[in-house]
Amino acid sequence: MPANPQVPEPTVLRLSVYLRVLSRLEAEETDRASSATIGVRAGVRPEQVRKDLSYFGEFGRPGLGYSVPELRRHLARILRADRELRVVLLGVGRLGSALLGYPGFAERGFQVVGAFDSDPEKVGVRIGPHVVMDVQHLRFVVAELGAEIGILALPAEAAQQGADLMVEAGLRAILNLAATSVSVPPGVAARHLDMTRELEVLAYYLPG
Amino acid sequence: MPANPQVPEPTVLRLSVYLRVLSRLEAEETDRASSATIGVRAGVRPEQVRKDLSYFGEFGRPGLGYSVPELRRHLARILRADRELRVVLLGVGRLGSALLGYPGFAERGFQVVGAFDSDPEKVGVRIGPHVVMDVQHLRFVVAELGAEIGILALPAEAAQQGADLMVEAGLRAILNLAATSVSVPPGVAARHLDMTRELEVLAYYLPG
Repeated sequence: MPANPQVPEPTVLRLSVYLRVLSRLEAEETDRASSATIGVRAGVRPEQVRKDLSYFGEFGRPGLGYSVPELRRHLARILRADRELRVVLLGVGRLGSALLGYPGFAERGFQVVGAFDSDPEKVGVRIGPHVVMDVQHLRFVVAELGAEIGILALPAEAAQQGADLMVEAGLRAILNLAATSVSVPPGVAARHLDMTRELEVLAYYLPG
Repeated sequence: MPANPQVPEPTVLRLSVYLRVLSRLEAEETDRASSATIGVRAGVRPEQVRKDLSYFGEFGRPGLGYSVPELRRHLARILRADRELRVVLLGVGRLGSALLGYPGFAERGFQVVGAFDSDPEKVGVRIGPHVVMDVQHLRFVVAELGAEIGILALPAEAAQQGADLMVEAGLRAILNLAATSVSVPPGVAARHLDMTRELEVLAYYLPG
């Protein structure tokens, strides 16, 4: 099923929460669940659960709720969580190195298959199971590694150049963790995880 | 102006983008700007700009657009970006250490005023201008430091305990970077920045 661009991003974010809720319900051997049950665990109103799921077809049956294993499989397919996705990391400074040891990726099916840097002092260094490669080689090895997603953890001043190299190398999705946004051509998905923006949102919600 | 809980979070996120657009416009000595001008730079439709701003009152004038310096000041006040906010960091592993060197915080008015850890091997260690303090002392020094926001960068298994200590210490906003979500009592704002969820959203938008 190709991504439906009509689906709002907040819905996609919630789908990933529902998927985890359903995985837990399945582990608890719960066969059926209502939108209310899913909603309580996901911290979302039942109507929102139903609306989010309705983008992708008719899953539930009135009065019977959803089949937990069936809905979990559907959501996994929609989010491509039904297969391993391979990720390369560009930038092995402190943030990048931290991500190489991040346990959440492999647990949810993302495999980091290569780490790259432009700093000659870092190229060749071993970090856990990875030997850091020269970013100039990125485009020669992405296909070989089977990587589809790139994580960009370079300093702000190098971020756009790094993104360009990722796009040239054939990566079609970039998670940008640099302290600046980057431009990518149409057909490439990019998300900017801006730590400062997160603090700004929290600041808005500070009491008094 | 207290935070209006009716304002959707995506609006708050976009306000922080508008604020940066307006700061750039002001630096370029542009006096007035239409919702279209702001929208183009923010990557948002003009109607959305007008709707987002309408939550906070009447700023623009039909046909004349917005006064750039005035709107920038308003947004800075709404987002509390008109004063320095002090932040403490809990967890100085690789991710936490990376954040201590993150340039974006100070640039946008967030000052990291203390770093804490529970690992006796890390307490007392100097990282840049910080000497890592024992997390047990957090509640004795938060008021002294004038900190309002905490960044939680502990391993998943220690995250909830760390969040509890932050709440006890009087912090009223927590940015959780751990690989698991945490519970906080009402009156405390928390955001979970889940790296894996970001990859899941990207995976959804992967072509083919």
